[in-house]
Amino acid sequence: MFAPSIQPSPTGDAMHEFCAGLYPICRSLTGNGVRETLARVAERIPLDLHEVPTGTRVLDWTIPREWNVQDAAVIDASGRRVIDFRESNLHLVGYSVPVRTTLSLAELRPHLHSLPEQPRVIPYRTSYYTESWGFCLRHDRLVTLAEGDYEVRIDTTLTDGSLTYGEWVLPGASTDEVLISCHICHPSLANDNLSGIAVATFLGAALARAPRALSYRILFVPGTIGSITWLARNEASLGNVRHGVVLTCVGDPGRPTYKKSRRGNAEVDRAFVHVLSRKGREHAIVDFSPWGYDERQYGSPGFDLPVGCLMRTPHGQFAEYHTSADDLDFIRPQALADSLAVCLDAFEILEGNRCYCNTAPKGEPQLGRRGLYDPVGGKPHPPGRQLALLWTLNLSDTRHSLLDIAERSGLDFAAIRAAADDLLRVGLLAPA
Amino acid sequence: MFAPSIQPSPTGDAMHEFCAGLYPICRSLTGNGVRETLARVAERIPLDLHEVPTGTRVLDWTIPREWNVQDAAVIDASGRRVIDFRESNLHLVGYSVPVRTTLSLAELRPHLHSLPEQPRVIPYRTSYYTESWGFCLRHDRLVTLAEGDYEVRIDTTLTDGSLTYGEWVLPGASTDEVLISCHICHPSLANDNLSGIAVATFLGAALARAPRALSYRILFVPGTIGSITWLARNEASLGNVRHGVVLTCVGDPGRPTYKKSRRGNAEVDRAFVHVLSRKGREHAIVDFSPWGYDERQYGSPGFDLPVGCLMRTPHGQFAEYHTSADDLDFIRPQALADSLAVCLDAFEILEGNRCYCNTAPKGEPQLGRRGLYDPVGGKPHPPGRQLALLWTLNLSDTRHSLLDIAERSGLDFAAIRAAADDLLRVGLLAPA
Amino acid sequence: MFAPSIQPSPTGDAMHEFCAGLYPICRSLTGNGVRETLARVAERIPLDLHEVPTGTRVLDWTIPREWNVQDAAVIDASGRRVIDFRESNLHLVGYSVPVRTTLSLAELRPHLHSLPEQPRVIPYRTSYYTESWGFCLRHDRLVTLAEGDYEVRIDTTLTDGSLTYGEWVLPGASTDEVLISCHICHPSLANDNLSGIAVATFLGAALARAPRALSYRILFVPGTIGSITWLARNEASLGNVRHGVVLTCVGDPGRPTYKKSRRGNAEVDRAFVHVLSRKGREHAIVDFSPWGYDERQYGSPGFDLPVGCLMRTPHGQFAEYHTSADDLDFIRPQALADSLAVCLDAFEILEGNRCYCNTAPKGEPQLGRRGLYDPVGGKPHPPGRQLALLWTLNLSDTRHSLLDIAERSGLDFAAIRAAADDLLRVGLLAPA
Repeated sequence: MFAPSIQPSPTGDAMHEFCAGLYPICRSLTGNGVRETLARVAERIPLDLHEVPTGTRVLDWTIPREWNVQDAAVIDASGRRVIDFRESNLHLVGYSVPVRTTLSLAELRPHLHSLPEQPRVIPYRTSYYTESWGFCLRHDRLVTLAEGDYEVRIDTTLTDGSLTYGEWVLPGASTDEVLISCHICHPSLANDNLSGIAVATFLGAALARAPRALSYRILFVPGTIGSITWLARNEASLGNVRHGVVLTCVGDPGRPTYKKSRRGNAEVDRAFVHVLSRKGREHAIVDFSPWGYDERQYGSPGFDLPVGCLMRTPHGQFAEYHTSADDLDFIRPQALADSLAVCLDAFEILEGNRCYCNTAPKGEPQLGRRGLYDPVGGKPHPPGRQLALLWTLNLSDTRHSLLDIAERSGLDFAAIRAAADDLLRVGLLAPA
Repeated sequence: MFAPSIQPSPTGDAMHEFCAGLYPICRSLTGNGVRETLARVAERIPLDLHEVPTGTRVLDWTIPREWNVQDAAVIDASGRRVIDFRESNLHLVGYSVPVRTTLSLAELRPHLHSLPEQPRVIPYRTSYYTESWGFCLRHDRLVTLAEGDYEVRIDTTLTDGSLTYGEWVLPGASTDEVLISCHICHPSLANDNLSGIAVATFLGAALARAPRALSYRILFVPGTIGSITWLARNEASLGNVRHGVVLTCVGDPGRPTYKKSRRGNAEVDRAFVHVLSRKGREHAIVDFSPWGYDERQYGSPGFDLPVGCLMRTPHGQFAEYHTSADDLDFIRPQALADSLAVCLDAFEILEGNRCYCNTAPKGEPQLGRRGLYDPVGGKPHPPGRQLALLWTLNLSDTRHSLLDIAERSGLDFAAIRAAADDLLRVGLLAPA
Repeated sequence: MFAPSIQPSPTGDAMHEFCAGLYPICRSLTGNGVRETLARVAERIPLDLHEVPTGTRVLDWTIPREWNVQDAAVIDASGRRVIDFRESNLHLVGYSVPVRTTLSLAELRPHLHSLPEQPRVIPYRTSYYTESWGFCLRHDRLVTLAEGDYEVRIDTTLTDGSLTYGEWVLPGASTDEVLISCHICHPSLANDNLSGIAVATFLGAALARAPRALSYRILFVPGTIGSITWLARNEASLGNVRHGVVLTCVGDPGRPTYKKSRRGNAEVDRAFVHVLSRKGREHAIVDFSPWGYDERQYGSPGFDLPVGCLMRTPHGQFAEYHTSADDLDFIRPQALADSLAVCLDAFEILEGNRCYCNTAPKGEPQLGRRGLYDPVGGKPHPPGRQLALLWTLNLSDTRHSLLDIAERSGLDFAAIRAAADDLLRVGLLAPA
């Protein structure tokens, strides 16, 4: 599965370890599991925490009641906890209301979710916006449940409280910003989306270490309602969002997949496509669709923000998706590190991409007397650097960006960027 | 040859029977055969009959004299009718002038048309606009003609009369209209074009049974001169023609073929392409060319009407074309019924295609509280209906039509249309 | 290698003979070899000779000193000329400064250029803009050089003089002009670029024999500095250059290759693509890149002239490139003649391409009464001429040129042009 370029990496190991620390926490749309998760992130990068009260209107939605779980189990007549929240937080359907009752197996049955075709894994199910309760369990366990009465004990609270999300802005030279968003609402599922949380956290740390032409905003939000809440509270400043990416399922061993923004050819789309195409290895580029993660909200027609989504194997296309098999073994240090690197490479393009103007546009300027041309003529192939210089000069007519030039020439953005830097130094390029 | 979706159909049988009734009639550009054909059509749908006198100027053309045939034969010395119009009306070259003469075989020979490579069929030939005469015959018969004198007897009349065509307008809620046109000038040839006449007639009957957003105009015209006549007489109201299709060779067992209008991406083109592509079976889409049937006239540069052409095997690409082998066995009830269905499906798109505006365009609206979203979350794949709702919301920004949305999402137009109806009902869409 | 369409041709033989006469001359950027070459061209076509003095500023460059060679050799201790300019002018690095010295083999070695992977050929190297000297030799000779002292004798002059180029303008009905450019600065290399010189010369002779709608300007210039010089001196009239082609490596037996202008879809690009595509044989079309010959200068962003480049096997893609193997055997009479024919065919398109207006645009005009339509109807396939007439009428709406029509119809430009001429004659077309 791994492409050869994905090598063991200390950063990958650190990210995987970070995921391992987050794995046992029971997260949901709201509640203390989210707060504990954000506290772990805040140990690594500064984080502003926002609490938005239950009942607050956010766009077409309303902040729901806060949900917390003390305990949940189904207990058989012998007192055995046959389905036990303490064993796996996936056993309880998310947002289950409190219940204390005793039911026959037949009465209990409609509340039980299993996957007959994957009998050894626990599915992940929620009921956020409909008052309900239920349990998820391995199908091979379900079929062993004997007839008889079962005690149902769901000690949850659904109370007025708040929705919690985290945010960090790294200011750059420009107020133009790159939005990085990941969802934090899934319980013990590793690829979906501890992987995204880890990559976002480590991206923040890496970006903080260098000067930035652009500002970066990293959001840790519960899915759907979280991005909607952030959008509702920041509508006035959305014009600053020039590029963005949602990080989800970025730790599995599959090839990287970039899903384009709704616009389809935004600069961020072209940057990720360039990075993935140039790496000389398997990858996938897919078009926007309104099914997926928070790119759905950023890409709703009233906002239409240029926000794509980086994944490895897309959600719903791996058997482990939304089951207990999406565990710490399913995500790999090398994959996490590679996803981080892809983002940093793409951001490098966004940082450096701009249009220039060739100051000697009539004919080629004489590069030789500026030390930029091979003094011996006649060789059949130009050195790559020379070709990058010629392409950059030829297309720097104020209308082509460096990324345009890289795409048209088939050369790496980095090579074109280096050529532009050389040409700026000798005065043959000027900012457009 | 038949795709599995083409099933036996009572409608197809009725259409084939209708063709069988029309088959023996000797049609041409003008004359009583045309009138008799239109009378048969008028037994099924109301038809306005138009008679345009010989000599009338129509665009660059002039209505020719009316041609009628009493009898025609070549008779050998023994009195045997060796080529006999009564046996097949294809034996006489269309628009042959009256002749009574006796010729040697050598003198007769230049007037005889046969197909050496298809020796057992009679070709179909005409000489509409050049005064001439001739006979068509099987090549295997031609080669048996003995030396000697032959009596030529062509009892035709070419007199001032009129050109006849039929027209029916089915008014709809809008004056915007769909033009349906078929040619009625071919003698005993079944696919070309009794099939078109039958599909047009049955389309009229089907359209009359339901409310219509659009108006429909069905034309039964002799080829070229007929559409030119109609265009000349209706120039002032051509602006109403928003979509159109010429029906020709729509009964043979080959795959359906849609030839695009001159515009190439008119709404009617996209509707037929969508229907044929979604049927999951073989079909062909071909570009406009100025060779074919009356789409040549509708698509002349001075009109440039958005009129495509539905065929099965295109004219000139089946061996039976313009020969006596294009008979009632060559056309199939199922093919006729399928052509009818393709048209009705495409018209359904034209009826329902429009742009809407998402009334809650910022973020996704909360579909769950409107009963439009699965209450249990976490499943790997969205129900198709949910996907149609999300696509329709995401792209309903006043600029994308439902057909645009169907094309971009890869979903059926019908599914998108149903989603739009649901969203209109709950107030999440409004007409753009 | 040869496509069957490339036949023996007297013209090809004459071109090859012309190349043979030029082959021994030692050409460079400047000097008497260039003058002698232009004198040979001037025996066949009238040529204006330009001398531009050393030190003249031309765009970003300066005309270099003039270089001439009297003799050059490396002489071993026994007095043998082990590397000898008289044997091949490729032995001396172009623009080598005068040298009289004696060196050990180790000291000499950095000045010697060979090709270890092609040990039996002499490479071609230059040092135009850096003061330097060197020799090129077969690698199998290099390895036989014994230790010891070598006398280096380079009797060259680098003096104030001038850069020489030739130019011929053939006026046409319009001042719009076609620029034909070839480089004349390579010594004994046949394909690169005696072939280009020969094709340009014979093109001039051929164009002079017929009336011309367009003007033609043929340039014989040293590479890079020559085109830059011409551009600098003719900046005010560059607006007349409507089409152009650089001729280089047009004599080898490979398939013809057309490299598009920087614009990518200029009329000249479309003309050459049409000609090569219609010939029904192997060819290649490549996109513009700023590596190659003088199209780099014509296509610099400050000029952006629509100038493509005709080659056979592109420079750097044949093993003989820039070596002594690019000799008179490597170029073929048939290839030279074919390159000439391709240019003439493309120019024929440029001469005749324009937009017309159908004067009877509503419906098809009745071609039959104008003698332009087959009087017998019903045949399955239209004669090609008829199809050309119909396409020309259908698309002559003032917006489609004859080349547009040829491309869209898939017919030859010549057929469309003939149809347009017929239609003009009967008044059905008028100039747009």
